[in-house]
Formats: sequence, structure tokens, C-alpha cells
Amino acid sequence: MKATILAGTRDIRLLDRPDPTILAPGDVVVRVVAACVCGSDLWGYRDAGPAARERLMGHELVGIVEQRGDDVATLQVGDFVISPFSLSDGTCQSCRAGFTSVCDHVTFFGGRDPDRLPVDGAQGEYVRIPLAESSLVVVPGPVDDALVPHLLALADVASTGHHAAVSAHVAPGDVVVVVGDGAVGLSAVLAASRLGASRVIAMSRHADRQAVARAFGATDIIEERGEAAIAALRALLDGELADAALECVGTKESMEQALAAVRGGGRVGFVGVPAGGPELHIRELFDRNITVGGGMAPARTYIPQLLPEVLSGAIEPGLVFDRQLPLAEVAEAYAAMDERRAIKVLLRP
Amino acid sequence: MKATILAGTRDIRLLDRPDPTILAPGDVVVRVVAACVCGSDLWGYRDAGPAARERLMGHELVGIVEQRGDDVATLQVGDFVISPFSLSDGTCQSCRAGFTSVCDHVTFFGGRDPDRLPVDGAQGEYVRIPLAESSLVVVPGPVDDALVPHLLALADVASTGHHAAVSAHVAPGDVVVVVGDGAVGLSAVLAASRLGASRVIAMSRHADRQAVARAFGATDIIEERGEAAIAALRALLDGELADAALECVGTKESMEQALAAVRGGGRVGFVGVPAGGPELHIRELFDRNITVGGGMAPARTYIPQLLPEVLSGAIEPGLVFDRQLPLAEVAEAYAAMDERRAIKVLLRP
Repeated sequence: MKATILAGTRDIRLLDRPDPTILAPGDVVVRVVAACVCGSDLWGYRDAGPAARERLMGHELVGIVEQRGDDVATLQVGDFVISPFSLSDGTCQSCRAGFTSVCDHVTFFGGRDPDRLPVDGAQGEYVRIPLAESSLVVVPGPVDDALVPHLLALADVASTGHHAAVSAHVAPGDVVVVVGDGAVGLSAVLAASRLGASRVIAMSRHADRQAVARAFGATDIIEERGEAAIAALRALLDGELADAALECVGTKESMEQALAAVRGGGRVGFVGVPAGGPELHIRELFDRNITVGGGMAPARTYIPQLLPEVLSGAIEPGLVFDRQLPLAEVAEAYAAMDERRAIKVLLRP
Repeated sequence: MKATILAGTRDIRLLDRPDPTILAPGDVVVRVVAACVCGSDLWGYRDAGPAARERLMGHELVGIVEQRGDDVATLQVGDFVISPFSLSDGTCQSCRAGFTSVCDHVTFFGGRDPDRLPVDGAQGEYVRIPLAESSLVVVPGPVDDALVPHLLALADVASTGHHAAVSAHVAPGDVVVVVGDGAVGLSAVLAASRLGASRVIAMSRHADRQAVARAFGATDIIEERGEAAIAALRALLDGELADAALECVGTKESMEQALAAVRGGGRVGFVGVPAGGPELHIRELFDRNITVGGGMAPARTYIPQLLPEVLSGAIEPGLVFDRQLPLAEVAEAYAAMDERRAIKVLLRP
């Protein structure tokens, strides 16, 4: 089969690799119907590091179950499935509490499973998926091809945006600021709007992303950053601040922006992978009574919650995909996102 | 009138001061029925600092309205009132959101009000209370004297313990660990129990405090600290961890203890005033999907919520008071708490 590897900085290649097979009785093999490139894939792409080796890429996919292990009963060959970006056992304490992303046996694409067996990347034709019953979510068929982008979005970005909003306890009537206009930030706009925020203020300076933000329910756009952004926010809110802020970038600046955007007693949900900081000043949290929460989204928990609304057409999270390419052009997919020519690229094997 | 001042390290004096009068039309003057000593009062007591001056002490009181300003309509002379430990305007964005402790005009006893006028300390015979209508809570009379400790507890510790539990989103069925066995920690035990926690694990090594914790609903006691405490916790929980931890001390060690006590996706509510740290490691929060929230309790918001249960006898938060003294013996009240001969001392002018 064909699969995507990162061979070095800005060196994405589609290579021939052995077709995956069932290695453990809880495995399935899935034929990938659609995968995509994540903003986090770009980190290694932009700086593969001195010890770069052939790294299997991709962690978002929807597909068809082609084979199943002997212990797999609830998934059938032919099922259309969504895979969350992290696989989980469904039984540990964190999973039982709904936090599948911090499962005791959390397993990532391109990594190793609990048996130390290698797991394929999602940007390929096939993937072996361990912990399959507790990880995959079946989409009741037949699946309209037009739904594929929206289903694929649930695998990561829609769930991650939702986690930002859930972690910030967004509730009906809230005024919410979203920091970050990548696919996750835009998905957080959708999540805040879906949860009943009365006002969703997207921070974006790119017309294409602003348009998606509006489609997702943003009521206002702020193009400024830093202190100027807070001044613009106060101007929008009669001098006041937001109830909640969703941090969807992961830098020191974006977290500070989020913290500065909320009123006393406000809430910050963060899903940007912290890139080297910051440390949170607990005295500031205390003095302003701020709650901060977040982390990697438990997509396995959220997918079944969001799926009915995708199937009904109530939400269209796949609008973050502004380009589709065949898997053969995966290198262009990375380049387009790296150069901000695309928000997020869907790949069809 | 008599009022308590801190004249220097471990130098508490009861002095004669002018009786307070109405200084602004929103003021009332309250005759103090009961006040008390707070754990936070001990910080200055133990180290008044090189520039120590005569500092007015006390921020918890219940009493009777004796005079009112011209703008005060909702409070009557003769009303029995509970004062939250911070005064608030009731109209700013934070107050409207229920976070009265971070009011734009937050005012503290012994400090200055929004007009820069001095505010009395609560450990005295009378206090002038600015922002009176938006701060004081009337107890429907007549008030049984036996209720006084329980009503007084609402002014700070019961509300502060409640804030720890609310900030940690304690919900029915949760397993909750409480770090700290001072009056606030004990009150947090009561709050977690009241909110439906299935198991409330108090960390305490003092028999008198353990007894109050049990009376407040603690199901288990852990005497160990640090890693040994986590091992003891896992032993209690079949190898698992708590859903939520309530940090009621304010040191680096206590926050680390609280963070270590919760499962992936767990929640830490903190009300211990941070004493010099720590900075929170955002990467750890992210990796474990931990939510951290807290600060000074919005007692003005909580008092009316908790008051009916005090009046009905459903909760007895005043059990934290294990000693009562006349105001004349305020120096002994401080010494008893400093030397851990008392958990919390109630003072009667």
C-alpha cells in the first residue's frame, strides 16, 4: 500500500509499505476513505529535527472495516467507521470518566500500541487499528459521500474545538472569544455557537478563515492582537470582557491573550498543544478567579455526541476543509497548509 | 468602641477607637454580635514585617444594623445581617456573573472603600459597612443564639470551602480529596459532601480536625503526605485516583498534592491563597487534561444559597468553631489558633 512518511524537514513522501494485517485479536484493518493533514503535522514538517527518520504521518481518518480480529464482535466487515485521533481501551478510570485521550493505554497513529506493535499512520491506504472496539465509532450506513468531510472532521478538529468549549464550560448566553483561526479554532467557534453562546468572537485576520468562522456562528471578528485586541473586545462589549475564552494555538502569547480576554470569574478552555510554555501564574488565576482547563480532546467520547447532528445536517464541521487532493498529492497538501494557501486539506486514497 | 489591632509580630491588642458613623449614604453601621479569627489573620500575626503598623484586624462578622445611610432602603435598623468577608457593588460584570469577590469595587475590612474612606476591622464592637445593600445578607429573625456560629461561618470559611467544591465542579458520585484540615479544608469537606460526592477523603493528621471532618461527611481520612498520601489514596480506591481535589492551603506542596490526587481529566478547585507559588505547569495540565480553578470565594453569592440549610439545621458549618471567647480575650484567640490549640475561635464583643 501507499503511506505517507516524513523523511526530513519539508520532505513528505508517499512510499510503498506492506499492507497491514491483523496482529492481535482486538485489531481491525480499515481501508481509508479519507484522511487529512493536521496543523500539528506541520510542526515536524517545518522542523524535522536533526534525528529525523522516516516517520509515519497522519492521525485522522474515516474508512471501511476490511478485516477484523477474533475478539472483535461489535464491528463488522464493511462498517463505515470514524477513528478518533487517539485510541483507547474504554475501561480504565480515565476512559470511564470520558477522558479517553488520557487513557492508561492511549495509542497514537504512527506510534506503538499497548503490545508495543507499530501502528500505521492515517495518511495511507490502509491502517491496522488496535483497541478497535473501544476506539472506532460506526456510522450507520449507507454513507453519502458528501458527508465524508463532516464525518472526518469529527476525528480530530471538531472534537478538539468542542473540547475547548466543554473545558471552558460554555453555556447558553455566554460571550465567548476564540483565540486561533486554524481548523481547531474555527471548530471551537462552531462548538461555542452550538452550545448556545450568545456571542462568539473570532480572532482572525484572514478573510477565508473569517468566512468559515461566520458560517460556524461567529457573531464578531477581531483582527487585532495583544492589547489592541483586548481594546477591540471591550469596544464590542460596552467596556466589558468575555465570559470564556477558547485557546486554540498553544503559544505563550495565545494563552495570555485568552486569559486577558475574560472577566473576573471567567473560564479559559485550552486545546492548543503548549509549545514550550507558559507556566500559568497561579496568583493571577487566584486574584481574578479564573478557571483553566483543557488538553487533548477525548474524541472517542465526543464523536457519538456530535455524530447525529452531522448526519442530520444540523452542523457541517467539514467546512474547515477548503481543499481536497488525492493521496498521491500529499506533499502538496502539506505545502498548501504550510504556506497558508489552505486551512485544512482532505486526502482521498 | 473596642477594636482589635495588630501592633507587631504576635502582638494583638484591643484598643479604644472612635465609634464608626455613617460616612456615605450607602453605609450602615453594624453592632457586631460575633466575629472570629481567620487562618489568614495568622500570617501577619506570625510575621508582621519590619514596617508593621497598627493594622485593623478581622473580616468575618454577623451583627445588628444600628444606623443606616440615606440611600439604604433594603436594610432596616435592627436587621440581623451576615457580612461576606469582601464587600461588593453588585452591579459590575463580575458581580452580575456571581463573582462578587472580584468586584470592580471590591472592598476589604481594614482597608479602604471605593471612596477611599477607611473601613473598620471586624474584630471590634462596631463596623461601618460601605456598599451595604449589595453586600450584607439579612437573616430573617428572630435569630436563635445557637445559630450564631453557623451563620458566622457563612461569612468566610463555609463559603470558601464551598467555592473550592464549586470551582472543582464537584457533582453527585464524585470521589473528592480535600487537601488541608484548617477551617476552610473542613468546610470544603462539608461542601463536597453536600454536593453529593460519594466519597470525601480528608487529609488530616490531627484527631480534633478528623472528628470535625467526619461530622462534615468525610468518609475516609488520610494521614500521610506527599507520595505516601497518593499511595494511601490508591489503596483506598482500588488503585485509582480522585475525580476532584480541593486545595485549601495555598502552598506549592499542597497544590502539587492536589494535582497528584486526581485522575486524568480530573479537577482541582483551589482556595488557599497562593503563598509564593507554584507556577502551574501548563504542559502537565494539558497532558493529564486537568482543570484548575479557584480564588477568593464570592461569599455574597453563596451566603443566600447556603443560608436556608443553616436555618433548617441541615448543615452546621459552625462546627469549625471549637472555642468561643469574649472579644476582650482576642489575644488568646490568636495564640490558641497559632499554637493549634484551637481550629477556629469565635469572638463575642
